[in-house]
Amino acid sequence: MSYKSDIEIAREAKKRPIQEIGAKLDIPSDHLLPYGHDKAKVSQEYINSVQGNADGKLILVTAINPTPAGEGKTTTTVGLGDGLNRIGKRAAICIREASLGPCFGMKGGAAGGGYAQVVPMEEMNLHFTGDFHAITSAHNLLSAMIDNHIYWGNELGIDERRVVWRRVLDMNDRALRDIVTSLGGVANGFPRQTGFDITVASEVMAILCLANDLSDLQRRLGDIIVAYTRAKEPITCRDIKADGAMTVLLKDATQPNLVQTLENNPAFVHGGPFANIAHGCNSVIATRTALKLADYVVTEAGFGADLGAEKFMNIKCRKAGLAPSVVVVVATVRAMKMNGGVAKADLGAENVNAVKAGCPNLGRHIENVKQFGVPVVVAINHFVTDTDAEVQAVKDYVAEMGSEAILCQHWEKGSEGTEALATRVAEIADKDESNFAPLYGDDLSLLEKVECVAKRIYRADEVLADQKIRNQLKEWEDAGYGNLPVCMAKTQYSFTTDPNRRGAPTGHSVPIREVRLSAGAGFVVVICGEIMTMPGLPRVPAAEAIMLNEAGQIEGLF
Amino acid sequence: MSYKSDIEIAREAKKRPIQEIGAKLDIPSDHLLPYGHDKAKVSQEYINSVQGNADGKLILVTAINPTPAGEGKTTTTVGLGDGLNRIGKRAAICIREASLGPCFGMKGGAAGGGYAQVVPMEEMNLHFTGDFHAITSAHNLLSAMIDNHIYWGNELGIDERRVVWRRVLDMNDRALRDIVTSLGGVANGFPRQTGFDITVASEVMAILCLANDLSDLQRRLGDIIVAYTRAKEPITCRDIKADGAMTVLLKDATQPNLVQTLENNPAFVHGGPFANIAHGCNSVIATRTALKLADYVVTEAGFGADLGAEKFMNIKCRKAGLAPSVVVVVATVRAMKMNGGVAKADLGAENVNAVKAGCPNLGRHIENVKQFGVPVVVAINHFVTDTDAEVQAVKDYVAEMGSEAILCQHWEKGSEGTEALATRVAEIADKDESNFAPLYGDDLSLLEKVECVAKRIYRADEVLADQKIRNQLKEWEDAGYGNLPVCMAKTQYSFTTDPNRRGAPTGHSVPIREVRLSAGAGFVVVICGEIMTMPGLPRVPAAEAIMLNEAGQIEGLF
Repeated sequence: MSYKSDIEIAREAKKRPIQEIGAKLDIPSDHLLPYGHDKAKVSQEYINSVQGNADGKLILVTAINPTPAGEGKTTTTVGLGDGLNRIGKRAAICIREASLGPCFGMKGGAAGGGYAQVVPMEEMNLHFTGDFHAITSAHNLLSAMIDNHIYWGNELGIDERRVVWRRVLDMNDRALRDIVTSLGGVANGFPRQTGFDITVASEVMAILCLANDLSDLQRRLGDIIVAYTRAKEPITCRDIKADGAMTVLLKDATQPNLVQTLENNPAFVHGGPFANIAHGCNSVIATRTALKLADYVVTEAGFGADLGAEKFMNIKCRKAGLAPSVVVVVATVRAMKMNGGVAKADLGAENVNAVKAGCPNLGRHIENVKQFGVPVVVAINHFVTDTDAEVQAVKDYVAEMGSEAILCQHWEKGSEGTEALATRVAEIADKDESNFAPLYGDDLSLLEKVECVAKRIYRADEVLADQKIRNQLKEWEDAGYGNLPVCMAKTQYSFTTDPNRRGAPTGHSVPIREVRLSAGAGFVVVICGEIMTMPGLPRVPAAEAIMLNEAGQIEGLF
Repeated sequence: MSYKSDIEIAREAKKRPIQEIGAKLDIPSDHLLPYGHDKAKVSQEYINSVQGNADGKLILVTAINPTPAGEGKTTTTVGLGDGLNRIGKRAAICIREASLGPCFGMKGGAAGGGYAQVVPMEEMNLHFTGDFHAITSAHNLLSAMIDNHIYWGNELGIDERRVVWRRVLDMNDRALRDIVTSLGGVANGFPRQTGFDITVASEVMAILCLANDLSDLQRRLGDIIVAYTRAKEPITCRDIKADGAMTVLLKDATQPNLVQTLENNPAFVHGGPFANIAHGCNSVIATRTALKLADYVVTEAGFGADLGAEKFMNIKCRKAGLAPSVVVVVATVRAMKMNGGVAKADLGAENVNAVKAGCPNLGRHIENVKQFGVPVVVAINHFVTDTDAEVQAVKDYVAEMGSEAILCQHWEKGSEGTEALATRVAEIADKDESNFAPLYGDDLSLLEKVECVAKRIYRADEVLADQKIRNQLKEWEDAGYGNLPVCMAKTQYSFTTDPNRRGAPTGHSVPIREVRLSAGAGFVVVICGEIMTMPGLPRVPAAEAIMLNEAGQIEGLF
């Protein structure tokens, strides 16, 4: 049996005009700002007008630690949204926007897969509605204004060696990681070493995704620390007077984007912060808007539950006052086998014992999510080679943990394949049994917050931090930033900081390599391992094969 | 008497939905790709479908050499378009898009002024439909792929010292003019000195504005010379295999943008290449599309007629097979006075003699335009302090030259103020008396082409080019580029290369400082004087005052 590719399925999509999709959520077409016929932004005015509505139920889709076998988190988010609509619920999904740069390195990503996708796929992988370009502009305006301030006399006394605000481009360009600027003489300013990150790594991205509204956005932008004086006093974006113009540049980008699933159900696709040095969730504004318009909102968080769900709960929900009603943990039989020690090449053969051996990774995530007081359901994202015995092994394991695992076939069948999951998820959500609370209080010290996550989520024995790091955290606490949550940046492939340790290890240490203050976004980034904020292109970039075909369709992007 | 500011007038505009504007040109709403409710792109499919239509008449608006008094070229373009509509003609205008970066330095520009403006003004000064962002992405993808090629083994043998393709940002950022990239060790590539230009200076911008269609666009992108080998053999974008992906990135940007004038008449706003190192006109695709849809198309060219109209004729019209039916040269009484030696501070007082003394600048432009075989009308863009005697002096001068000057009051009165001009322009266009031909043939040598423009347009005695420049031009001729037109880059303030020499000087020399080959755009840039391709911000950037007010309106951008 042969299957169609994601792009073939997406091209066959019978898209409805975006006004019809908006109408499913009662958004009047006047309040949809169209971008072509299949994309729109929901106007800020309309968002303001629905603030009195009751909130729908929030459902988080997260996953086991990712493996090369794939787990299908976005696919399941889309499938569950379609499944809820299929059983008669008014449901919407909220996912992140894709970054343009990486599409020219490795292939671009579909939003979902098989018969559980969001369209228009090409636009979502290219310029979409321009949000990331607006972030790039806003970020680089601040950069230009910092160097301009120094150029014209440096009234604020910025120490050129301590400018911490870099520049960004939505491009994989290793040559820009580490550069010296302002060469060429007096007219070009004071030479200094700096660099570019990719746009999704910008603090402006994190801010846009955590802001409540435009005035909160401007306040947060103003709070960004861009440099320090020789006396190590912080200089903020507000000191540079860039916050107003940056807000103007981000005015349109702040409004959430509406598109549709293959089954013509509403999908909000808005924001896309890094899941390591930032919190990795779509925007608060999109999630909140969806909750005001739909009875059930399905959203996802980046990476596995140890990073994505943890940050969703401890950062996004804490700060935005959100509370998930139920969490869906996505697992696949193939990923369980890899966690059980099987190599990728051998995944095709039935191996029930390997499935069983890998299940503790899933079990750990289930336990972790329950620590936040939220009910858990496991979605087994079915792959065509999975055997009944293997699927049953996962179900049995989850049942032993007191939870429930439901087989889903949305990749192959669309919403028909998620009816059972949707029904169960809606039942749980409707019971209002969730008793959500973040894992730690605001009042713990920054290091205690790291230890809390490391011990209770990663199951590490200890956190290793040298004196320099401890001093830095202490300094920030003294400066009034002690109440911020921590944003952990570690490998997504393991509970440990070693990407090769699959399963459910214990007894390890979590060494802190570096800490960074994102004062505007409102968290302290704790870096445990190598974090790349400007990717490079591979030997043969995908871009070499990207082109328009005779029919004007885009080839090579997927 | 007090007058409203441009922004006040623009905010009071009674905009019609963009579908209604498209309907005036019979564009079905399915073929308008909306960006919000007041902007749209015209679909490539629709453009293809109207290629059998007869062409309308093309009217070029150009001007005297700009002075600090202002001349109002765009304002007159808008006013004439509205005037033609007012007298019952089916007319559209075609103007350039604004660059984002400079808006944060000095104040952003309205498109037109007074009651002759194009709206929505804010969006046109900010992200608009994302065209410039797409150009930035496409340009920088090529940059990243060049360094990536070198990083992975440099199979093409690029000489790192001879990479001529820089990077671009739509930002005034002097710190990026001259930089060293790829520092930080082996993983970041080979350090080399390079820099950023502003996006409008990108050859990609010039290419987008000269391309006939997407396949021509890709061919031109492929032709870009990005570097040379040690043996000085050129390496093209096609060698780097970036042309396909760049075309994909520019697919939407290639479709012209439709907006409206204050009087709800159709305005195409598309592309915005530099008027010095590029040709300074809106896109060929927009102009051609407008000609297929309207009976009269009013367009403009950058700077004064010595640069803008010359390039419009010798580059854009030559290459796109366009022929203007009539040229309108815009002059103001105030600018005539400045050309006549009056300082800006003294412009308020009547000074008929100064007007007469300044008129030869206008006269020179009239003569120049006639050399292309096209009838000329002078539009006197009325300023409220102009006296009748001053206006009459200009009219008399132009009449003595065998042409006609018509007073226009569109700034104050909208289309009512251009009825006379519109009537006369339509009469001339309808007579089909134009006998357009470029000033020089393709077969002249590159230096002969420069000499032709310098002597016949600038009225210089000689062109000064040292042996290095002569050799370079000869090399390009030998390599097959001898048939290209030349793109002159000199000050816009004078016929000479000295910005302070107003009026109609003769007997000067034109020294060539540098020549550059834009093989993709299809011209040889001849630089005569200082050309800045990356502006800086002023001591107090406009950005400091740009913000959203309580009503959510943008303040400080204008």
